Amino acid sequence: MLEAAPQPYAHDAPSETFATPQPLVDLPPAPERTPAEEARTLAAVGAHAALATLSEDGEPWASMVAYAMLPDGSPVLCVSTLAEHGRNLQRDQRASLMIAQRDVDGDPLANGRVTLAGVAERVEGAAEESARAAYVARIPASGLYAGFGDFSLYVLRVERVRWVGGYGRMDSADADSFRAAEPDPLAASAADAVRGLNADQAEALLEIAAGAAGHPDASAARCTGVDRYGLWLDVKTPRGRGPARVGFGESIDTAEDLDAAVAELVRRSQDAPHRG
Amino acid sequence: MLEAAPQPYAHDAPSETFATPQPLVDLPPAPERTPAEEARTLAAVGAHAALATLSEDGEPWASMVAYAMLPDGSPVLCVSTLAEHGRNLQRDQRASLMIAQRDVDGDPLANGRVTLAGVAERVEGAAEESARAAYVARIPASGLYAGFGDFSLYVLRVERVRWVGGYGRMDSADADSFRAAEPDPLAASAADAVRGLNADQAEALLEIAAGAAGHPDASAARCTGVDRYGLWLDVKTPRGRGPARVGFGESIDTAEDLDAAVAELVRRSQDAPHRG
Repeated sequence: MLEAAPQPYAHDAPSETFATPQPLVDLPPAPERTPAEEARTLAAVGAHAALATLSEDGEPWASMVAYAMLPDGSPVLCVSTLAEHGRNLQRDQRASLMIAQRDVDGDPLANGRVTLAGVAERVEGAAEESARAAYVARIPASGLYAGFGDFSLYVLRVERVRWVGGYGRMDSADADSFRAAEPDPLAASAADAVRGLNADQAEALLEIAAGAAGHPDASAARCTGVDRYGLWLDVKTPRGRGPARVGFGESIDTAEDLDAAVAELVRRSQDAPHRG
Repeated sequence: MLEAAPQPYAHDAPSETFATPQPLVDLPPAPERTPAEEARTLAAVGAHAALATLSEDGEPWASMVAYAMLPDGSPVLCVSTLAEHGRNLQRDQRASLMIAQRDVDGDPLANGRVTLAGVAERVEGAAEESARAAYVARIPASGLYAGFGDFSLYVLRVERVRWVGGYGRMDSADADSFRAAEPDPLAASAADAVRGLNADQAEALLEIAAGAAGHPDASAARCTGVDRYGLWLDVKTPRGRGPARVGFGESIDTAEDLDAAVAELVRRSQDAPHRG
């Protein structure tokens, strides 16, 4: 399920616009979450999204909704026919959801979001009950309204997935990969982990930048992301400053395993052939 | 430009579901921002939105964009044909933007958002230059990409406006009212003002709840919103707890005028016929 970083956005612009320092040593591609895993992770962490539906004359209508995820990656919505999006879905079930990364500091366009497009189905019987249970568990405030007669539950059957990780990081995922992918179990604690590493392990991060990340001339390094497969660093070198990716030896499943994985990266960095 | 609160959402549900304590004395309706002013204010404060466009087969496509506002209330977008929303707008200019309140603590559905729907026009000549200037001023990061050949500027000519202020607060605005309305000059400082009032003026808020807001049995009151026309309070009484609105004697134009307006509310509360 691991793959190398997506290629930078092929803008009609000089390539040096996005030039960042490249590793000075030959390294295998660092593992990253697949686009399907990125998409499932964003969807799992979030609970509110923008919904696009079709108004009466076929115009696109953007609104806000709460959602919950079913285990197969289908979002559950609960909308009222008193709202335009509810009337729209009653008439035409084609829809897409845009879920953006939560708690973003700074530029939202530099952070993650995903569009899930498909068909919103009214569900009945046992499927309705499990959808309702998932929705009420994720959106406690829906206890106020989920049982009202004007509200209906829909399950979005996802057909197309487009993930954007920030400037220059984006890819599509097919529906089967999306359904099969696992949300990153570290996602909920990643922001705390990033803060902790920057506060307590600054020397370790610089060692990793110089070693495992292949920037022996690094003068500073901060962690900008933590996931089950590795770290994102912001590395400063005399050749410029930019993002660097470094992968753990093995993927980790809980935040408790992070310290050991970082310690292993430090050892790998100290033992790197290009050091000392 | 002032009007009373919109009517609660007429759900197909028992009306007591949303029962909140009503004022015990007869008060004139407290002034509020109009739906058009609410919409212009949300749009002025924000800089990122969800965009709904039409994909090749007419399906609705939700994505994230940055935007800037022109003085007439038209949002400016800058999108790439390397992105699906850019190709969509090239093919079909119908679009809507959903702008949500920023920096929300708690439930986003309990806070404000607005949908602006219309037609996104490519602009040329002087109109393009002023749109570009507005966009680059509001979205400094666009210096990275706004000049690339794959990016185009669009101005969304707004035809329909739907504002939602939270559970049970919503209304439409016509396009002319939206264009003519002024964003609330207090909006940018409102969150700080709310924090300041709750930290430093708890007694004044309780006095206002008991007096000007008409809840003489109030046992606690916190400020939940500040705007140019008045305050929103969360008031606790033996009859229940709920929102109360109180209007300033005159609308205010700057945060510096807030202390005097609150002091005037306290005087009005102490002098209220139902007190003492």
